[in-house]
Amino acid sequence: MNYLDALNKRYSVKKFDPEKSVSADALYHILEAARLSASSLGLQPYKIIIAQSADMKEKLIPAFYNPSQISTCSHLIAIVSKNDIESKYIGAYFTQISETRDVSLESLNPFRESISKHIDRLSTEQVITWADKQCYIVLGNLMFAAALENVDTCPMEGFKQDIIDEILDLDITKEKVAVTLALGYRSEEDDFQNLKKVRKPNEKLFKFI
Amino acid sequence: MNYLDALNKRYSVKKFDPEKSVSADALYHILEAARLSASSLGLQPYKIIIAQSADMKEKLIPAFYNPSQISTCSHLIAIVSKNDIESKYIGAYFTQISETRDVSLESLNPFRESISKHIDRLSTEQVITWADKQCYIVLGNLMFAAALENVDTCPMEGFKQDIIDEILDLDITKEKVAVTLALGYRSEEDDFQNLKKVRKPNEKLFKFI
Repeated sequence: MNYLDALNKRYSVKKFDPEKSVSADALYHILEAARLSASSLGLQPYKIIIAQSADMKEKLIPAFYNPSQISTCSHLIAIVSKNDIESKYIGAYFTQISETRDVSLESLNPFRESISKHIDRLSTEQVITWADKQCYIVLGNLMFAAALENVDTCPMEGFKQDIIDEILDLDITKEKVAVTLALGYRSEEDDFQNLKKVRKPNEKLFKFI
Repeated sequence: MNYLDALNKRYSVKKFDPEKSVSADALYHILEAARLSASSLGLQPYKIIIAQSADMKEKLIPAFYNPSQISTCSHLIAIVSKNDIESKYIGAYFTQISETRDVSLESLNPFRESISKHIDRLSTEQVITWADKQCYIVLGNLMFAAALENVDTCPMEGFKQDIIDEILDLDITKEKVAVTLALGYRSEEDDFQNLKKVRKPNEKLFKFI
């Protein structure tokens, strides 16, 4: 499918067909698109939790203001952002660069120092905002790849932070759920699929200079 | 091209080939993917500025800490986030929904009220953060679509906010550049294209529950 057709077909599903599951293959490809996401400085300040068991999805329902997606989706993805980029984390990143690219850690020192300096200059609040934004690139990749796989989605910001973090057993001193995405297949009963997409027209959205 | 191959081929270009321009067709498709981006409540709190003239790109160089992409790219895209969601803006959105879907404005009142209430509850700082995050979904879509069009990219957060906002003649009481993306074709001289991609392995990135 042409990718613009896929994006046009996409909409935020309000009710999934609870009988249909996303296949392991499709899920693997969609998650691989998330893994390949670009991130600021390459630091990937996130992890991705995939709730797939019926029990776990059920448990998560109270964490959402609109539970209809959670109770019907095939998989619920939580993108968890790191609130703190410790020097140990940066160290592990550079060890991985060194191993992947077969270069010495020493040769990476200038890059490492510049990254550490940059992160050190940020306040806690700024680190949180910065990390959250990187999670939204992941969210974009997940929705785009899902559309190409003909899998439907609904991105959701409407969750109760403390409840979802607790259910997912996060260490809230270091991480929190940034945003969530339900995956599945649209229910025939979901009338929203028949509504025309509302987007700004080109002349209001774009300015060429 | 398979989309995972395209994402694997993508990297953040440090130097573009200044002789190669992105075609009008490819650019149109990439921008259409941005226009189709999902956004919270459908509010699309952004506009997209595309600098394509040599003069304008030249003028933008001092706004960036690393100018090598700006001086060699084909197009420089600035995603501009709205700092303020006025009731007039929400009104225009609902007029568009009403016209696009051929439904009365009155029938949309419950949705409109719930959106207005939600936005009113946010502090200015929270609106800015929320709008910025939506811009990163657009950024994700732009990079993904560009990769599918075989167009190279470099996302850039490293700009001087006051300088870029002034060059782009933004009304800083209402909007600011959230993030930028250079488009073009990788230069043969850019050694970064030969480096292996560094991404967390599945077992560190994903958790299935």
